[in-house]
Amino acid sequence: MSSIRSRIEASFNAQGLMSTLGAELVHVEEGEVHILLHSDTKLSQQHGFAHAGAITSVLDSACGYAALTKAPEDHEVVTVEFKVNFVRPAVGQRFVAIGRVRTSGRTLTVCTGEVSVYMENQPTLVAIMQATIMHVRRDA
Amino acid sequence: MSSIRSRIEASFNAQGLMSTLGAELVHVEEGEVHILLHSDTKLSQQHGFAHAGAITSVLDSACGYAALTKAPEDHEVVTVEFKVNFVRPAVGQRFVAIGRVRTSGRTLTVCTGEVSVYMENQPTLVAIMQATIMHVRRDA
Amino acid sequence: MSSIRSRIEASFNAQGLMSTLGAELVHVEEGEVHILLHSDTKLSQQHGFAHAGAITSVLDSACGYAALTKAPEDHEVVTVEFKVNFVRPAVGQRFVAIGRVRTSGRTLTVCTGEVSVYMENQPTLVAIMQATIMHVRRDA
Amino acid sequence: MSSIRSRIEASFNAQGLMSTLGAELVHVEEGEVHILLHSDTKLSQQHGFAHAGAITSVLDSACGYAALTKAPEDHEVVTVEFKVNFVRPAVGQRFVAIGRVRTSGRTLTVCTGEVSVYMENQPTLVAIMQATIMHVRRDA
Repeated sequence: MSSIRSRIEASFNAQGLMSTLGAELVHVEEGEVHILLHSDTKLSQQHGFAHAGAITSVLDSACGYAALTKAPEDHEVVTVEFKVNFVRPAVGQRFVAIGRVRTSGRTLTVCTGEVSVYMENQPTLVAIMQATIMHVRRDA
Repeated sequence: MSSIRSRIEASFNAQGLMSTLGAELVHVEEGEVHILLHSDTKLSQQHGFAHAGAITSVLDSACGYAALTKAPEDHEVVTVEFKVNFVRPAVGQRFVAIGRVRTSGRTLTVCTGEVSVYMENQPTLVAIMQATIMHVRRDA
Repeated sequence: MSSIRSRIEASFNAQGLMSTLGAELVHVEEGEVHILLHSDTKLSQQHGFAHAGAITSVLDSACGYAALTKAPEDHEVVTVEFKVNFVRPAVGQRFVAIGRVRTSGRTLTVCTGEVSVYMENQPTLVAIMQATIMHVRRDA
Repeated sequence: MSSIRSRIEASFNAQGLMSTLGAELVHVEEGEVHILLHSDTKLSQQHGFAHAGAITSVLDSACGYAALTKAPEDHEVVTVEFKVNFVRPAVGQRFVAIGRVRTSGRTLTVCTGEVSVYMENQPTLVAIMQATIMHVRRDA
């Protein structure tokens, strides 16, 4: 697992968008990845809450990296598609996106993800994702 | 239409994320909105292409504002959910997101959106979205 | 809960499609509903497995009725949209669709659902759904 | 094209569910397939309208067969996932589902679909789909 963790850290650090959003990779285990996002006016929609696109960006990375923990060694992952429900305005300071593998086949992995906002250490659900991720050979 | 255009411009300019991504509102008509996104390393995923989250962010704003052109005057719009397919790596310099209203009811509007990359003025499809947007009374 | 159970049973029995598919309502609790589907050639796709549409039909009813357990008394539910991943061919004899409420607001409920096939009493995941359901006043 | 048409007809006729629903394959061209569904109490939900699952079943077949017109000769298609919005109650006598290929790659095809109800030969939109379909080698 430590090699997959360092591989995911290196990949995460190479994502310009994660740095632009101020996102942090906070947890990697087999089949599950957590990413932290801090509220910031640079991420806002018109009412000052976090934009659905910022929430989706960290969810997509969390799901993609969760899928990568299950992919064959010489494979990358690409997002085929995802669907996200926004169940509550993204109001608050700290958001945690969790991506989890539901099932992983030869070519495709299906993940579910969720973003919660933490207030006084209590999580409240903000968004949920269902995503399809494809394995592609690294030199393909 | 000019009042809806200025209302959308004001809202777009209030979205911190659109500014962070360098996105530009380039076209507003009834039921259709276009947003331009320039490729930039600050928007990249690990291979240097535009991150699915950046592509999704402008698609979401384009669909939301297209819905707003159809909403009652005293209403805002919020994204209930969307689904996006990424059909090709987002390689290139200029991306245009187009959001279009497919059907608009009392409470919900359904939009479809697409992002194309322009190379030598030829568009190539990168992503397509199907989104559900809710109308909420402004003071609700 | 017994009144909601009998209300759901009456509604289920009024669904011509559930009868056509041979589906059975097997479990109702607050926020969760189970529907059983037996494999049958009348439900097949071209290879003889259960058609994605048959699997989706019971998932949709399971999610809709789960949402109904949380809706205000004088409200019905209608499906706004859903997304389903088919993770494995629907081979087997007995399929169970489970719909669960993830979050329920004034107007909208978000459910997740899954269909498993049972072989020697072991469930294997066949499909997962994420659905948006709207509450509408019964006389609206 | 005539060989693909007869291949699709044979496959459609082998789908037990299409026969159970009374669906008819009415049009096949490269990248587009139409399926007709007649209203019937055996397809109903609890209010007597066509069930979302019946609407989805014909949409899924229309999209799958549209994808098949673009797949390599020795390949089948399987539905990876789809998302459907139901934009209006499915009230009426004749529903037509149209599936169209949006983009087709080596492994995956993305289709969009729509169902309209016809009243006095005027179509009214009932549902829209966005679907991902995978090509699999026939003997795989």
